Amino acid sequence: MNDRFLKACRREPVDCTPVWFMRQAGRYMQEYQAIRAQHSILEVCKTPELAAQVTLQPIDRFPLDAAIIFADILLPLEAMGLQLEFAEGEGPIIHNPVRDRASVDQLQPVDGDELAYVEAAIRQARRALTGKVPLIGFAGAPFTLASYAIEGGGSRNYILTKQFMYREPEAWHRLLDKLARVVTGYLRRQIRAGAEAVQLFDSWVGCLSPGDYAEYVLPHVQLIFDGLKREQVPLIHFGTGTGSLLRLMRQAGGDVIGLDWRVHLDDGWRTVGHDVAVQGNLDPVALFAPLHEIERRVEEILRRAAGRPGHIFNLGHGILPNTPVESVAATAEMVHKLSQR
Amino acid sequence: MNDRFLKACRREPVDCTPVWFMRQAGRYMQEYQAIRAQHSILEVCKTPELAAQVTLQPIDRFPLDAAIIFADILLPLEAMGLQLEFAEGEGPIIHNPVRDRASVDQLQPVDGDELAYVEAAIRQARRALTGKVPLIGFAGAPFTLASYAIEGGGSRNYILTKQFMYREPEAWHRLLDKLARVVTGYLRRQIRAGAEAVQLFDSWVGCLSPGDYAEYVLPHVQLIFDGLKREQVPLIHFGTGTGSLLRLMRQAGGDVIGLDWRVHLDDGWRTVGHDVAVQGNLDPVALFAPLHEIERRVEEILRRAAGRPGHIFNLGHGILPNTPVESVAATAEMVHKLSQR
Repeated sequence: MNDRFLKACRREPVDCTPVWFMRQAGRYMQEYQAIRAQHSILEVCKTPELAAQVTLQPIDRFPLDAAIIFADILLPLEAMGLQLEFAEGEGPIIHNPVRDRASVDQLQPVDGDELAYVEAAIRQARRALTGKVPLIGFAGAPFTLASYAIEGGGSRNYILTKQFMYREPEAWHRLLDKLARVVTGYLRRQIRAGAEAVQLFDSWVGCLSPGDYAEYVLPHVQLIFDGLKREQVPLIHFGTGTGSLLRLMRQAGGDVIGLDWRVHLDDGWRTVGHDVAVQGNLDPVALFAPLHEIERRVEEILRRAAGRPGHIFNLGHGILPNTPVESVAATAEMVHKLSQR
Repeated sequence: MNDRFLKACRREPVDCTPVWFMRQAGRYMQEYQAIRAQHSILEVCKTPELAAQVTLQPIDRFPLDAAIIFADILLPLEAMGLQLEFAEGEGPIIHNPVRDRASVDQLQPVDGDELAYVEAAIRQARRALTGKVPLIGFAGAPFTLASYAIEGGGSRNYILTKQFMYREPEAWHRLLDKLARVVTGYLRRQIRAGAEAVQLFDSWVGCLSPGDYAEYVLPHVQLIFDGLKREQVPLIHFGTGTGSLLRLMRQAGGDVIGLDWRVHLDDGWRTVGHDVAVQGNLDPVALFAPLHEIERRVEEILRRAAGRPGHIFNLGHGILPNTPVESVAATAEMVHKLSQR
């Protein structure tokens, strides 16, 4: 069993730096496109055989040190009663967005088998992996989920989300508390189904001021990490554009803090503290560069990590749709080669 | 003459904190919409009477301490030979984007009267202002202009821009050098026409890693600030999402550094150094909040500025289209009232 990834999460020494990529199973791979030609995203997510199959596609092809279950962060919103659609080329749409206190109250708790298909996919993926690499589970964080729930989809300026936060603080906290409880239960069930680490994606939290993060978001994230502590698997806390939020994110929780490319890895690690592990932080667009340019950047990140135990190599965000497959393969190889102890 | 703004730019003591807002003349004002109902954005920009009139609209209505000439950062790109269109509701489109070395070479220098209409607008606005408040000129910075020139419009991930940077570094530097020279000349002419301060908008530079900023952008921004030093007017250097770039932006130049809401004002000021002034940093979305929430945020920003000479109150980015006019008025008043020395 390749346990480099789990060791690095626990800040134990490893033979070389472990590497995986967010959205490593995705549109840039022909194997994935072949499945998606026949099934919608939601069908893949809800059919454990397909989700497990897609989860393994990058593992079969690249020298990666972890798999991540194929799913979508918005699945719990659907389970809570929101009507979710993935419109081709437009990203997710929620047809009944949350815009007032009443619609917060109507959101269902998720305490039964609403998301059992994710657990089943995890069990199947674990079996198919035959211990080759560990399997990561994940969920969206309350702020990021709330932004989709309120905006009704993706957003540029998060005007409706922040308006809700500023104008209806009580309903906002009630919404985030509901989301935090659903996410905690969902991640706990993923772990019990076999996820050997879990990552919380607060992808859009970087649109907030540190003051707003501390007041409107942090307590709810803390609830999740506190609730998962005794599960004894590494907890990864990820966001983008978080240069000025890192200290607060660390305070909210996580054994591993995600760093995006907007901070130097050593600066970011110093900010969150050397008593947690870090994950990152190549710009996903760097994978479109020539290989010698990618290598220069991989080298720099490893130099800034300075061989300190507790670095997991990753991108600063997910792999982009038209990324060259060869660059993904080459980058994973470079990380191993250049970090050999 | 109200010279609070210019004094604060020079870090001299003032009776109360000066305030102006990026995009203070814009769609959120009925007076502006009335003009735009009859004229396109480009018509307003290119008709000095209209540009001057729009420039004064917010000054006539709110207690602001500076006016900013109405123009668009993309005008120099048009003067350089790019075909610019503002499609209703879609933002700017460039029909012949820069995608290779040859199209960089084809870009025209701007050394004649291509942008004389902006100078004429500045002269008219100065006359109309009758010394009431100072007038700010502005230009887009090379990276931000290059991103529009290469993407052909706005962008989410700047994939084409960064690809160009990584794959064609020589052509990239040639492009940014051309843009820097055009911007320097353009700002110099604005100053000579009567602009009493100028702001360089590097609005999208926050998508870059600090390493990429230092290598691919900083030298070109430095050229601009060095070239304008002897003009003896305050130079403002602005960007968003720049939490980890502030030290480098300061190194690139500017008497005043713009801070967005993602950093605490005191942290940002400490980072750039107390020997420059700072401008910012209320989240533009905060203007959608109830007045008591806006006031709490204005108070916090002023508390973090701690009465230190050299703070200009502003938003962290431009006023958004549906912002309530009353909130803009109230915020300007609050800044003055709460900062009274």
